[in-house]
Amino acid sequence: MSAANEESPILGSKQEPTGLTRLFLKYVRPPVGEFHAVALFVFVGVLSSTNADTLSVAVAHGLAIALLVAVYGGISGGHVNPAVTLGVVIGGGCEVFVGLLYIIFQLLGGVFGAALARMVLTVGYATTDNVTQVDLYEAIGGGVPQLADGVKAWNGVFVEAILTFILVLTVLMTEVDQQLSVAPLCIGFAVLVDIIVGGSITGAAMNPARSFGPALVAGIWTNEWIYWIGPILGALFAGGSYRAFLAKSEYRILFKDKSE
Amino acid sequence: MSAANEESPILGSKQEPTGLTRLFLKYVRPPVGEFHAVALFVFVGVLSSTNADTLSVAVAHGLAIALLVAVYGGISGGHVNPAVTLGVVIGGGCEVFVGLLYIIFQLLGGVFGAALARMVLTVGYATTDNVTQVDLYEAIGGGVPQLADGVKAWNGVFVEAILTFILVLTVLMTEVDQQLSVAPLCIGFAVLVDIIVGGSITGAAMNPARSFGPALVAGIWTNEWIYWIGPILGALFAGGSYRAFLAKSEYRILFKDKSE
Amino acid sequence: MSAANEESPILGSKQEPTGLTRLFLKYVRPPVGEFHAVALFVFVGVLSSTNADTLSVAVAHGLAIALLVAVYGGISGGHVNPAVTLGVVIGGGCEVFVGLLYIIFQLLGGVFGAALARMVLTVGYATTDNVTQVDLYEAIGGGVPQLADGVKAWNGVFVEAILTFILVLTVLMTEVDQQLSVAPLCIGFAVLVDIIVGGSITGAAMNPARSFGPALVAGIWTNEWIYWIGPILGALFAGGSYRAFLAKSEYRILFKDKSE
Amino acid sequence: MSAANEESPILGSKQEPTGLTRLFLKYVRPPVGEFHAVALFVFVGVLSSTNADTLSVAVAHGLAIALLVAVYGGISGGHVNPAVTLGVVIGGGCEVFVGLLYIIFQLLGGVFGAALARMVLTVGYATTDNVTQVDLYEAIGGGVPQLADGVKAWNGVFVEAILTFILVLTVLMTEVDQQLSVAPLCIGFAVLVDIIVGGSITGAAMNPARSFGPALVAGIWTNEWIYWIGPILGALFAGGSYRAFLAKSEYRILFKDKSE
Repeated sequence: MSAANEESPILGSKQEPTGLTRLFLKYVRPPVGEFHAVALFVFVGVLSSTNADTLSVAVAHGLAIALLVAVYGGISGGHVNPAVTLGVVIGGGCEVFVGLLYIIFQLLGGVFGAALARMVLTVGYATTDNVTQVDLYEAIGGGVPQLADGVKAWNGVFVEAILTFILVLTVLMTEVDQQLSVAPLCIGFAVLVDIIVGGSITGAAMNPARSFGPALVAGIWTNEWIYWIGPILGALFAGGSYRAFLAKSEYRILFKDKSE
Repeated sequence: MSAANEESPILGSKQEPTGLTRLFLKYVRPPVGEFHAVALFVFVGVLSSTNADTLSVAVAHGLAIALLVAVYGGISGGHVNPAVTLGVVIGGGCEVFVGLLYIIFQLLGGVFGAALARMVLTVGYATTDNVTQVDLYEAIGGGVPQLADGVKAWNGVFVEAILTFILVLTVLMTEVDQQLSVAPLCIGFAVLVDIIVGGSITGAAMNPARSFGPALVAGIWTNEWIYWIGPILGALFAGGSYRAFLAKSEYRILFKDKSE
Repeated sequence: MSAANEESPILGSKQEPTGLTRLFLKYVRPPVGEFHAVALFVFVGVLSSTNADTLSVAVAHGLAIALLVAVYGGISGGHVNPAVTLGVVIGGGCEVFVGLLYIIFQLLGGVFGAALARMVLTVGYATTDNVTQVDLYEAIGGGVPQLADGVKAWNGVFVEAILTFILVLTVLMTEVDQQLSVAPLCIGFAVLVDIIVGGSITGAAMNPARSFGPALVAGIWTNEWIYWIGPILGALFAGGSYRAFLAKSEYRILFKDKSE
Repeated sequence: MSAANEESPILGSKQEPTGLTRLFLKYVRPPVGEFHAVALFVFVGVLSSTNADTLSVAVAHGLAIALLVAVYGGISGGHVNPAVTLGVVIGGGCEVFVGLLYIIFQLLGGVFGAALARMVLTVGYATTDNVTQVDLYEAIGGGVPQLADGVKAWNGVFVEAILTFILVLTVLMTEVDQQLSVAPLCIGFAVLVDIIVGGSITGAAMNPARSFGPALVAGIWTNEWIYWIGPILGALFAGGSYRAFLAKSEYRILFKDKSE
């Protein structure tokens, strides 16, 4: 992610590459990397939902994000999430155009990952006495996040917004701002903690690509809007707090000081 | 946290900023950061209590502290806990006046976080056949830490004191003293381990802001004093051991040696 | 693992050692280290299968890999897995001849570790009313990974391939390419996450030595081929993606640029 | 731990301190630090045994070791275990005399920690309808590690030896040899994994101070010898393998090469 702060985000090279290589490194490889990362994340996330206990689901999502941030950090910043991309763009760590490319490829990756997961859980099973081809996939509702029984829509938006705020803030402060060696772990922990906390309320998606892909593949659109509005609000608030208040002087708007 | 050792704790800048920016960076942003951090921690902590297993609750609190220490470490030192602030002040890593500001803002943050959690768990739910608006919040006793059945008050104080001692010692040794890159993880592990160990005895709050906020919001004050006296004793003992005995020469009182 | 990139992979020395020491450091100690590491991993893995919950099994395998990568990283690169060795050879981080030596010693290590685990679970128990000598070992099917009820063979191959892809990609990107200090943790997390995700489908072996050793010791060869073909396909795909697309310029084939 | 390699293990100072300060830093503070660390570890370990699931017990012991290694690493090397001290002495990372001091203080620390834990679980509880003063302490057998039903004595020794081998090897390779920033985490993971693996066979003590302290306080000496002989054998084997074969040239006996 740190790399995304620079004019040429992927390189850290002394000489600028030119022509096709520059296009490849700046506008091709990063979005394709985000496609990869989100496809793997959604595949893993949907399949992990076959575990009955929230803790296993939380650990699977959280540590998957930790390793994907580490793996793709040097390629694309390792956002793996349109809400994170939105927050990083606001925070000043990613160009608007690149951010738009990321979001498109992230959503496509989410669809691809969900389709693979559906295939694994349906036609990959023989119909036996115990298991029919569609049992597992239907049992987990296609891995689409849903509000728990009785949760009001505004409450779902509010919970998704706060949980996403924690996640995006962690990305901005540990990776973009301080570039800590343990940043990928902290970002993964944000997802892990958020799922323990919100899993039984909203499913704790915090990621429009995590909800959109499975929703499209399963054809389940109930409350999908909640999983867009909530994370977008959280990302706006995190990106804004960072820019106005929490960022180092280079990115900060308030009380900027040249001597700093 | 390391930054808190310096005269100008937040900067690491070569030139001192002046005037308003200096006030902002030294006396405004750090306490407000502590308000943020504690509000998020208490929100997460109270909601995590809806999980039945102690391990999930321990993981949620512990990894939340890990990421909050990493996120706010460069802003305020990332104490997230009045007992930690007390220990760091004694240990020499934070000015007394700044410490007092921190504690006030931490307590306010705890109230704010608990109020948000209450809202999420009550008016955010429709009354249905399965869930009534106040069921969840009452089922977890408002997330206020309580002594388990049969635990004597002095035993509660003693257990909270030892668990807080472990936490504050970890902050002082890994962050203030050695500034390890894995310090935020170790501090989170202290909370995680302490809750596995003491969760079934005292609830393992180790943090007056974690008990005060939920207590005020829920109006439950039984044994609240235990969650102040225990952590304060633990922090005094940890800060004192550090200062007298464990600190590097710069901070140590006993066997100080100029050649060191 | 990083060390494996160099001509003399184990040293990092300024002067080349000569004669026997060179042979020892390049062709003897690394393969023997892989034997050690796989023996410990398979021993731990088979015994961990006596835990009923998938999460414990996943944590045991994942964190064992994390520590073995850290322990043997400077000796052999810490592959602990023939599929990882294949991926690293393709990715350019290990010579073909050394890779072949590794795989032979890894398979022998797997057999040795499985034999020790069998001994512990059988003749190490007295026959009592509650436990007979063979109960535990038979109850876990000798620790040999198996397809869950109803999973088709091609689905098993596909799931093992994707899970191994994630693992090998993590090794290549975090260790070989970026040499992150948290690489051993990320590699362990890949195994941990993969087992939560695929444990209830294929057992999530992702490692021919993990399936071959226990299979030989238990004499259970059902579906053994799946645990070779799947991981080999995943490693080929990960190594190929890395070489063509994801690697830093030094190793990358496409859009190579001298200025980079 | 790294510090233990040097003539003056605690300092890393440019000038040698003299007289009393030198004695304090070399012969007083390190053993007293080991007393502290083991007391905290055994206190935490015994209390964690009130959790029914092996995973929680494993996480509590493992992450407690991780943080104690980080906290006391710069003071004493953070062995927290006589078997680790034995292995590090053999491996060349600690003087024999200092090692003997450590072991004495570790055993005393184990007794102190177990006594505190006993107090918390007995006289700290009022006798109620649900809980009597001695219920909890007796229910966990005083936290003394025991062989599971049917496990033969030699099997207990063997399992403790292999599990301790993994632990001591991790200390020697990640901390003493390579001084990795993630070494405390890896050492904690070794304990965590070992308990998941061996908890249902021997209790996975791997630490004579962890078995001796609780045994003395509870007066339960059954099989105590197993928890000495097993870990000692494991430490001898790990220290020997390290010295002969795995160590960097400076410590290695076989194929030593001046050019290295």
